Amino acid sequence: MNERSNDQNERSVFYLSDGTGITAETFGSALLSQFEGITLQPLRLPFVDSVEKAVQAADRINRQAERDGIRPIVFSTLVNADIIDIVRQSECRFLDLFQSFLAPLEEEFEAISSHRIGRSHAAVDNKRYDRRIAAINFSLAHDDGQSDRDLANADVILVGVSRSGKTPTSLYLAMQHGVKAANYPLIPEDFERRRLPQALLKVRHKLFGLSIAPERLAEVRHERRPNSRYASLENCRAEVAEAEAMMRREGISWLSSTTKSIEEIAATIMQKLDHTET
Amino acid sequence: MNERSNDQNERSVFYLSDGTGITAETFGSALLSQFEGITLQPLRLPFVDSVEKAVQAADRINRQAERDGIRPIVFSTLVNADIIDIVRQSECRFLDLFQSFLAPLEEEFEAISSHRIGRSHAAVDNKRYDRRIAAINFSLAHDDGQSDRDLANADVILVGVSRSGKTPTSLYLAMQHGVKAANYPLIPEDFERRRLPQALLKVRHKLFGLSIAPERLAEVRHERRPNSRYASLENCRAEVAEAEAMMRREGISWLSSTTKSIEEIAATIMQKLDHTET
Repeated sequence: MNERSNDQNERSVFYLSDGTGITAETFGSALLSQFEGITLQPLRLPFVDSVEKAVQAADRINRQAERDGIRPIVFSTLVNADIIDIVRQSECRFLDLFQSFLAPLEEEFEAISSHRIGRSHAAVDNKRYDRRIAAINFSLAHDDGQSDRDLANADVILVGVSRSGKTPTSLYLAMQHGVKAANYPLIPEDFERRRLPQALLKVRHKLFGLSIAPERLAEVRHERRPNSRYASLENCRAEVAEAEAMMRREGISWLSSTTKSIEEIAATIMQKLDHTET
Repeated sequence: MNERSNDQNERSVFYLSDGTGITAETFGSALLSQFEGITLQPLRLPFVDSVEKAVQAADRINRQAERDGIRPIVFSTLVNADIIDIVRQSECRFLDLFQSFLAPLEEEFEAISSHRIGRSHAAVDNKRYDRRIAAINFSLAHDDGQSDRDLANADVILVGVSRSGKTPTSLYLAMQHGVKAANYPLIPEDFERRRLPQALLKVRHKLFGLSIAPERLAEVRHERRPNSRYASLENCRAEVAEAEAMMRREGISWLSSTTKSIEEIAATIMQKLDHTET
């Protein structure tokens, strides 16, 4: 670990949980994204599910506070009161993410929460788990137009030019949402023939397009094949223009992935799928 | 949409956000996992980033309240006060996830939060984004021992018998954490030779093992190749025993994926990687 300055604008942040810590981290980083100009040093402390581990976690936080010269921020989704008490006494700003909301929910449901640890990402929901795995396998088998078989069973088929973001988006949709997302490239031959690939004609209603700014596409392709015609700005411009024209002609919904995160693209697609199902 | 009963134990839950809604959903479901015996009907309302969309969201919530005969729960990560005001007036239990924590953080940082919308999953951090994409591409190229090239550049290499959960875990590590996770199968030939695959000998310190209960493995394999020798319980028992013996012999850390979610397996591996780096 490097020596660290005790600059007010640099802070250690602990994500503390009796489970994976994903909830604490997702929520904590979202909150912190509201503060600019502060450099954060994130640290995960998952599986803090016993008094012994709570003592270790408190020690870890205290050491960090001493090293930094300023107390760390702790985002906690702990639910066990004994464990919380121990960590809360360490040198930190302790933000108890759960406690504030359990009371109103208990009131609303007229029920007591279980205060059981390690609940949120436990594999309690086998059906959801199996659905995700099936979706991941489907998306892998139908990545980049690898297989035309079974496209009718896709929930969505992403189309777009090579390197427009189809693969990561498909995998994210499968992983996060259990959606069977295939993806199929639009290639120069399709543009010459001025029609969609044959395999897609019968599943047209499942298509969703991704486009990308030619300048960004050229950058991404240069990473893969430096100085190729494939990566040249001229070629990227032509392919993107053709692909967008085709999507417009075929009435395919599409968005530009250029300034969007995988999460944002996926959320937009899910919104469309939710809407279609309703 | 089906007709719904107004059973107290069935509740509509809205995840409301000016961005993707992932934070609201991750956090809300974690909280709700503390309540048992309540059937939840989750609904995402992402990208509520204008007064107009706020009015639509409030309408949507009111319609649901009427249909259900009981007010929905709303988990909100909205940050704009005008938008919040509109939605808050709809027929719901409104849980403002952000507000309670922005004040203590502002105090701690001696800074005002930006209250800017759509921050948390915006592609502001291009470096993190590129790292994730590179990791996903790496994991895809090194799935199931596809390529021995470049294994030295992996952050971690998962090993285990076929269908022990290596592929989804690798992809999750890449997608969520930007970790270059390869995976390599342990196959009967390796057990006969009683040694690790040749390609892994030089990268032994990067290996992490996944095992699985033979009964669960047989189930998963039957899905893929029904009634094959590959899927038989007898064969699964033998392969798992051999793989575990090999991992013990080679001093490879491993865990059983049987009752664990992808998130839990990944968090355990990250903990090991974090520990190694420190």
